[in-house]
Amino acid sequence: MEGGCAFADGGFVPLSEAKISLFDWGFTRSDATYDVVSVWQGAFFRLDAHLERFMASMAALRMQIPYDKAALRSIVHGCVRASGLQSAYVALVCTRGVPAPGVRDPRLAQNRFYAYAIPYVWIANPEKQKQGLDLYISQRTRIPASSVDPRIKNYHWLDLVQSLFEAYDGGHDTSCVLDANGHIAEGPGFNLFMVKQGVVYTPDSGVLQGISRQTVLELCARQGLSTSLEPLPMAALRAADEVFITSTAGGVMPVSRLDGQTLPHFPGPVTQRLHAAYWALHDEPGMRDPVDYKD
Amino acid sequence: MEGGCAFADGGFVPLSEAKISLFDWGFTRSDATYDVVSVWQGAFFRLDAHLERFMASMAALRMQIPYDKAALRSIVHGCVRASGLQSAYVALVCTRGVPAPGVRDPRLAQNRFYAYAIPYVWIANPEKQKQGLDLYISQRTRIPASSVDPRIKNYHWLDLVQSLFEAYDGGHDTSCVLDANGHIAEGPGFNLFMVKQGVVYTPDSGVLQGISRQTVLELCARQGLSTSLEPLPMAALRAADEVFITSTAGGVMPVSRLDGQTLPHFPGPVTQRLHAAYWALHDEPGMRDPVDYKD
Repeated sequence: MEGGCAFADGGFVPLSEAKISLFDWGFTRSDATYDVVSVWQGAFFRLDAHLERFMASMAALRMQIPYDKAALRSIVHGCVRASGLQSAYVALVCTRGVPAPGVRDPRLAQNRFYAYAIPYVWIANPEKQKQGLDLYISQRTRIPASSVDPRIKNYHWLDLVQSLFEAYDGGHDTSCVLDANGHIAEGPGFNLFMVKQGVVYTPDSGVLQGISRQTVLELCARQGLSTSLEPLPMAALRAADEVFITSTAGGVMPVSRLDGQTLPHFPGPVTQRLHAAYWALHDEPGMRDPVDYKD
Repeated sequence: MEGGCAFADGGFVPLSEAKISLFDWGFTRSDATYDVVSVWQGAFFRLDAHLERFMASMAALRMQIPYDKAALRSIVHGCVRASGLQSAYVALVCTRGVPAPGVRDPRLAQNRFYAYAIPYVWIANPEKQKQGLDLYISQRTRIPASSVDPRIKNYHWLDLVQSLFEAYDGGHDTSCVLDANGHIAEGPGFNLFMVKQGVVYTPDSGVLQGISRQTVLELCARQGLSTSLEPLPMAALRAADEVFITSTAGGVMPVSRLDGQTLPHFPGPVTQRLHAAYWALHDEPGMRDPVDYKD
């Protein structure tokens, strides 16, 4: 299937047929969870970790689907195989489902599962990474964990979308938002890191527990880099030696400017080391789950 | 069209064909706004106010569609006419739209418009209203205005959905959530009111500026009832003489119990007066926009 392949209502379909009902609570209440895993040069990267997180998100939202981990693995492999894509952005989605007329009880819905494989998505592609990202720090606050648990990967993005408008209006590349205490939280689709005097910092709470974030923390441990998970004041970020973001959509991507102001060290040596280590990790057998493209 | 009619991709379709792309940011970022207006006994109720609010919500999210107010009015009338429904729940929905592959800038999407008419929805139907609702007060906090402006009607409902699970698990009928200060905010699809010593109270901020809420405030003025818009501490609600909720999905609906504890005055005289006035208002010519059901 040209351009990608989706799995919807129990079968593989072209992307143009990947649709959900306007009445699915996954849309009308954003009552849904999802996960995104990458395929790089013919193999899934850390698929098991993504499947585990997706299943934990579904459990936290009390969603049930008739697919266990092996079945989910088979479905996402099927999407990639049908698409023929060697490098892909693969999503798994579970929605609450379509209620019977007049019903408001979420326990009564039959949950629905979707998946799709599309070409690999870069928040910053390799060309852009050479320049580094210009990150805009929005004053908007991320939806707090007391409202929606950020560890359950969710589509509640209007705060992030509004920060993106501000960023693009100002000519910046992307944005991040703050937590209720005014500390740095996360951006649209990525976690944030900074490096100061050789130590790698990232916010400890109130953010998605990104698998790319976790990968970077593991790579730091391997490389003997000190890490600290703690609240990240805006002033600390502005005084950082290096800043980078992490996402399944692009891996480790360097930030060269904050609100248009150039950071002192770009390209930063620690960021470069972690970037190289991130991509090298894609060759390790334990991280790879190769796709069988034969029919 | 049996059971309702939708407007999607520029034409009228059966509900089963009312679908959005899995790739529409309206789904994957919950980047959408909507409004709901009722049709009662063959006429829209306060249609103009709903169209105005919907257009204000779209403007606040920087969405544009090729329909002005007259065209929107014509489309929702078309949905109701095609459905044949004498009493209906009519929704207007605008989504950010489907991005081109790899694009993340919300300014580049073509916004999409949908509408539908389905049978009238009651949060509590007339039978249930005789018993009154058992309202569960969740400790969960509503997404704050600093993250997502509640005056823009939106689908960010996971906080409300989780409070609904708690309510149903405890055998209650519905739920409400708190604001960041621990005061009463709103419930899934409704605003909250209480009556104490003849004064009608409702939260002043951090909640949807409901049109049913506004209608009740106007009816209070007409009837010489004192009103106060102010933060509503939980203790005040528990000590209330009367509690009721308001929604386009059912109008003025009485609460008889809080967390299962019976309120002292049920049915409450002020609630009954406002309930009667709400329905009587449906006969006033200025409030009605009759549907022409002839082909």
